[in-house]
Amino acid sequence: MAGSYEAMWEKLNLDLDAHAGLLEVLGKFYGDIYLSQDKRLRGMEYLDFVLSEIHGLRIKELQEAKAQGRKVVGTFCVFVPEELVYAADAIQVGLCAGAEAGFDKAEKILPRNTCALIKSFVGFKLSRLCPFFESCDLIVGETTCDGKKKAYEIFGDYAPVYVMEIPQMKQACDRDLWKAEILRFKDTIENLTGRTITAESLKKAIRLINDRRRVLQRLNRLRAAEPTPISGRDVLLINQVSFYDDPARFTQKISELCDELEQKIARGEGVVDGAQRVMLSGCPMAIPNWKLPYIIESSGAVVVGEESCVGTRNTRDLVDETGETLDAMLDALVDRYMRIDCACFTPNRERLDHIVAMARELKVKGVIHYGLSFCQPYGIESFKVEKALREAGIPMLAIETDYSMEDVEQLKTRVEAFVEMIR
Amino acid sequence: MAGSYEAMWEKLNLDLDAHAGLLEVLGKFYGDIYLSQDKRLRGMEYLDFVLSEIHGLRIKELQEAKAQGRKVVGTFCVFVPEELVYAADAIQVGLCAGAEAGFDKAEKILPRNTCALIKSFVGFKLSRLCPFFESCDLIVGETTCDGKKKAYEIFGDYAPVYVMEIPQMKQACDRDLWKAEILRFKDTIENLTGRTITAESLKKAIRLINDRRRVLQRLNRLRAAEPTPISGRDVLLINQVSFYDDPARFTQKISELCDELEQKIARGEGVVDGAQRVMLSGCPMAIPNWKLPYIIESSGAVVVGEESCVGTRNTRDLVDETGETLDAMLDALVDRYMRIDCACFTPNRERLDHIVAMARELKVKGVIHYGLSFCQPYGIESFKVEKALREAGIPMLAIETDYSMEDVEQLKTRVEAFVEMIR
Repeated sequence: MAGSYEAMWEKLNLDLDAHAGLLEVLGKFYGDIYLSQDKRLRGMEYLDFVLSEIHGLRIKELQEAKAQGRKVVGTFCVFVPEELVYAADAIQVGLCAGAEAGFDKAEKILPRNTCALIKSFVGFKLSRLCPFFESCDLIVGETTCDGKKKAYEIFGDYAPVYVMEIPQMKQACDRDLWKAEILRFKDTIENLTGRTITAESLKKAIRLINDRRRVLQRLNRLRAAEPTPISGRDVLLINQVSFYDDPARFTQKISELCDELEQKIARGEGVVDGAQRVMLSGCPMAIPNWKLPYIIESSGAVVVGEESCVGTRNTRDLVDETGETLDAMLDALVDRYMRIDCACFTPNRERLDHIVAMARELKVKGVIHYGLSFCQPYGIESFKVEKALREAGIPMLAIETDYSMEDVEQLKTRVEAFVEMIR
Repeated sequence: MAGSYEAMWEKLNLDLDAHAGLLEVLGKFYGDIYLSQDKRLRGMEYLDFVLSEIHGLRIKELQEAKAQGRKVVGTFCVFVPEELVYAADAIQVGLCAGAEAGFDKAEKILPRNTCALIKSFVGFKLSRLCPFFESCDLIVGETTCDGKKKAYEIFGDYAPVYVMEIPQMKQACDRDLWKAEILRFKDTIENLTGRTITAESLKKAIRLINDRRRVLQRLNRLRAAEPTPISGRDVLLINQVSFYDDPARFTQKISELCDELEQKIARGEGVVDGAQRVMLSGCPMAIPNWKLPYIIESSGAVVVGEESCVGTRNTRDLVDETGETLDAMLDALVDRYMRIDCACFTPNRERLDHIVAMARELKVKGVIHYGLSFCQPYGIESFKVEKALREAGIPMLAIETDYSMEDVEQLKTRVEAFVEMIR
């Protein structure tokens, strides 16, 4: 894609040589992990195309939208209420944080033992490798973990950062705080865009984002079929792309893919024979973080569910659509986002219940818990997840890793042993 | 002290053999670090006595108080409003978290890369090594960092844990949340003790705790004299003891020590000649975490200020004493604790300003920032502290360490080089 976009990337002040290198590595990685699969759905061609144009066509669309006066808002977390962004006719995109890029630069302004996701977003920005970052009019952070909370303070020297406070419990006073934060965010987006969010525009936006959630819920229901009709990494990719593709187009395309999936299921076709059904749980996997799913699916298992922010946590709950006034809709937003079962909450019993219920519904043989090194919320909570699963008679393997490829063989050995054990 | 307290420790279900070993190590450590000092104040004899009776006489006092129906509340953080505890005639004690004890057991229920302070309190409890823990009717945690927030969930299986939510910003909605948390804590303490907190009892408790803060403020003003009249580690010890000694007695004893200090200053007597004045900043140092201060004061420097929770953060701000109604006093509590400049807040500009102002007032040649390994809030914020100090022309050395003694020589080399550099 390089040829036709170089001028745009140059205008965005990317480091063109380093960026070309990144795209080459990404292309090769994608080819190995995705294009090598057998029996893929035709519908995945759209995802392949989107991925091949990840820094090209989508950025061009964003630039065209900006030329027409629309604003682009970048995020890192499922707590940021996208509905308000779209209700003000702005565009929300999830930002690159899934590859080891610019870590040398990031480690000059942050401790080395910061999680890879944080070093990645800081590294992408400092290395001028991400055209999404450079397209953003506002970057919205949140206080979901100490690492991000404190890193945003430093990151604010390099980018237009706004931080939302996420409560840590689910008491009445926490809902009040969260409502105040939602209203502050609404004001911020209105100021950024110069547009007033109305009952009409918010209603439309709620529907837009709910529709995307609904189609991903449908995908999750369908993928659960036996034999497994789609690989876990394909579904992960779909979830990852959902964060930055145009929502309406994405919903349409995934709806078509679901139609195809239904036909495949009706014909009793699976993607792999005899693979053990496992579920992933834990930290989010941002693009192009496909290491662990690839290892799992190369080790005699297939991933049939992702309990993560890039998975069910982002799609499980819909915003209530019955509200007619702006106030009612804002309350519906507040309530929907308060239901998120992030490890930032204490206690977070809901997540344990969700994991056990999901593992049972999906009839998995085991759960692989993925923790990013130095992620304390999910790292510590994994001990509780393991206990809850043990009590439910479901084996769990806890993996802690980062974005480097150095531990691939070691992880493969551990995953293979786990898959053998649950067989 | 062992002989006379063994029956009490046995009744508290301590691991007697391991506990005896701990006291022996602690005694030796204390002798090397504290009793070896020249030109100490006579007033430090009280501290030496308190320390020698740390698990003896003070525990006996707590047990006697409990026999009379009083309750004991254990804490780990300066956010827990002690005034409410004393207003209900209960006793508050800071809990042991400054030594490497029971880490093998702690690491079975928590990730290994959890900070030493957390592993320490979990380890002390699981190893049955701390009579304070065993004396507590309630242990109050807080959400100041991911590590503690999530560890308390697991720790709750082993001890009666109650968690206070600490806000992460200082907006109006945060004050509202914090007020709700203060009121919830008040109810909890009233339920625990069966006593109602009244305007009268709270007024008395506010005065009691303010008096302790005032005497520590006085100590901090006096120690700043040139030549330095008291070692930094003696002041650190005083701060550490302030967390578990009887407040009224402690205030009286430290007041006497301050009188002695004034006389010493009047005579122009210092404790060390030609030592470089430095300030400590960063993570709290719980008893018996004296490693770094000892290294610093054995390397040609003297610590003249501690910017930490076991230091100025706990004593800087008084609760307003003019309120006459219970409501007014509760509001005064809310406001006082909201002024704490913990790294849990974002942004936390106040702390940077405090550090620079303190370094200037104390006329230090440099600041040594102490970060516990895996403490993300202070670890990341240290980059901002370093920048603020650099802009003020004050050198900073960032030390990251834990409770082990393995790095002592390496730290000494670094500290000596820093002291040489700022000379």
